[in-house]
Amino acid sequence: MIEERHITLAHGNGGRRMRELIGEIFARHLANPSLDVHLDAAPVVLTPDMVPVITTDAFTVQPLEFPGGDIGSLAVNGTVNDLAVSGAVPRYLTLNTIIEEGLSVECLDRMVRSFGAAAKATRVEVVAGDTKVVPRGQGGGLYLATTGLGLRDRGCRLGLDSIRAGDMVLVSGPVGDHGIAVLLAREEFDLSGNVLSDCAAVTPLTVPLAAMEGVRFMRDPTRGGLATVAHEIAQATSRDVCLRETQVPVRESVRSVCKMLGYDPYYLACEGRVVAVAAPETADKVLALWRTIHGAEEASVVGTICHGRGRVILETEIGGERFLEELEDDPLPRIC
Amino acid sequence: MIEERHITLAHGNGGRRMRELIGEIFARHLANPSLDVHLDAAPVVLTPDMVPVITTDAFTVQPLEFPGGDIGSLAVNGTVNDLAVSGAVPRYLTLNTIIEEGLSVECLDRMVRSFGAAAKATRVEVVAGDTKVVPRGQGGGLYLATTGLGLRDRGCRLGLDSIRAGDMVLVSGPVGDHGIAVLLAREEFDLSGNVLSDCAAVTPLTVPLAAMEGVRFMRDPTRGGLATVAHEIAQATSRDVCLRETQVPVRESVRSVCKMLGYDPYYLACEGRVVAVAAPETADKVLALWRTIHGAEEASVVGTICHGRGRVILETEIGGERFLEELEDDPLPRIC
Repeated sequence: MIEERHITLAHGNGGRRMRELIGEIFARHLANPSLDVHLDAAPVVLTPDMVPVITTDAFTVQPLEFPGGDIGSLAVNGTVNDLAVSGAVPRYLTLNTIIEEGLSVECLDRMVRSFGAAAKATRVEVVAGDTKVVPRGQGGGLYLATTGLGLRDRGCRLGLDSIRAGDMVLVSGPVGDHGIAVLLAREEFDLSGNVLSDCAAVTPLTVPLAAMEGVRFMRDPTRGGLATVAHEIAQATSRDVCLRETQVPVRESVRSVCKMLGYDPYYLACEGRVVAVAAPETADKVLALWRTIHGAEEASVVGTICHGRGRVILETEIGGERFLEELEDDPLPRIC
Repeated sequence: MIEERHITLAHGNGGRRMRELIGEIFARHLANPSLDVHLDAAPVVLTPDMVPVITTDAFTVQPLEFPGGDIGSLAVNGTVNDLAVSGAVPRYLTLNTIIEEGLSVECLDRMVRSFGAAAKATRVEVVAGDTKVVPRGQGGGLYLATTGLGLRDRGCRLGLDSIRAGDMVLVSGPVGDHGIAVLLAREEFDLSGNVLSDCAAVTPLTVPLAAMEGVRFMRDPTRGGLATVAHEIAQATSRDVCLRETQVPVRESVRSVCKMLGYDPYYLACEGRVVAVAAPETADKVLALWRTIHGAEEASVVGTICHGRGRVILETEIGGERFLEELEDDPLPRIC
């Protein structure tokens, strides 16, 4: 039994306390047939006719818990989603935990439990992990870093280089929920609100699209939001990305917080949305499919890939146009 | 060109500054045919008749640079070595970087360059990465987290469960160099010394052993050192691990710092040593082989697996015995 109520440096020293911490928190919540905490490196089983793909992410969100999620579920979903939008089925996860001395054992337990639950929900197995404890004042409570391994069909042709002028841009749901939920959870502004993070695995949205003719590209609009994904597309293709303000779903509560604080919802992070680019004849199919899936009922075609020269243009509600510039400074809540 | 001399929060926001940082530091120093910084998830090529194995590690060493290495080379070697001692050939790495606001761009550049050089030297390809910036006072300058993917022969039988009573324990070189090098680099004590970290990839030592009949188990004695590896063996096998003080190589400089500060070198971390367990008839072969390899000239048979009940026993120089207890508190420099 862990006797301490708070994490000490000894929980990271390789000795008895660390062994107890790993046994009682990590091994317990992350248990699965592939996890053996005594191994230096864990074997994984892959399918020879599929392409293994790998991705990695660090998570430093503050606060650790927010309406709709926490750093544990975020760390699973963020990494799973990077695999998912690349057209893969997520299979394995590894977890690095950097704990600040003084974090309550109870909080760590909650976060690791949440990580384990999210992994089970997405059917990924946690196969390897490492835990470090850093001195008080050098952490942020808890940082997580995850690596995901997934399997993709050999025929998958998703990629920025598949995008053509005339293609449509879709979003699977309202943008900015996660950014605003985290911002409000910080209680830095005298604001409260009812916004839940959209933090979720997007595999139900991406798996059927990965094999669909005419789907060109998928990405999850995390840091920098929809506008930043649009910029990546514009820069890689040298086409203009034209978004229509009236078509981009933004919740009223998100819109009003943005207005008060001067944020633009198009730059705010989502953690459970997909941006997809598809041929015009495919876009309707994607839309119809997505709208039948829980969490994507408000999916929308939000724009078009146009001839042009690498700009992101927003057609405003009143019929004007404004450029969405690439993000420069940091006017945004830290969200991942 | 990066204009700033220090990392700001904007370098982590997904926008222009982050794109520049990734292009000019990460993409440049880590460049290899498998790295495409525009991908959400990177494909890897594995050999179907080998077993893929995966491992992960976080690195929070202070200071970031120390005689014999830095956090960059340590992050490569630490992860490569976990694959190596499991009997695998390391192939791919992913890198998470958590930067504290205010770190000098020059320092980051040096650390990433060192990471890239160590990866090239070990012939592992960096295929995916992620960068986060945390506010001043919430980092330790720089934390790295790496995941490694390697390939192991299907027939490999290395493991704690292969160990038998009568087997010999070997160490590939002097213990404790890394721990003392980092300790001295902190300049907390009014001590100076000439100790270099042993930080290095151990693949030259492990690859020939992985296929050798009679080699039971390998591990790198990092956190908690040789004594902690001995405890893992003792606990897993319920045998006693008997070490002979006169046989364990410890440099004179390490020994004298330990004496002054009250550390036990058997608990100090190494980052370029291997502990191996082998059948008696194999141990001599391993020893002869290791001693021909650069960095392992002082390899030694340091002990035996004995019938008993899970203790670690040190036969002292003067012929007595003392128990090496499992590490409890944290009297050690933070080393990884």
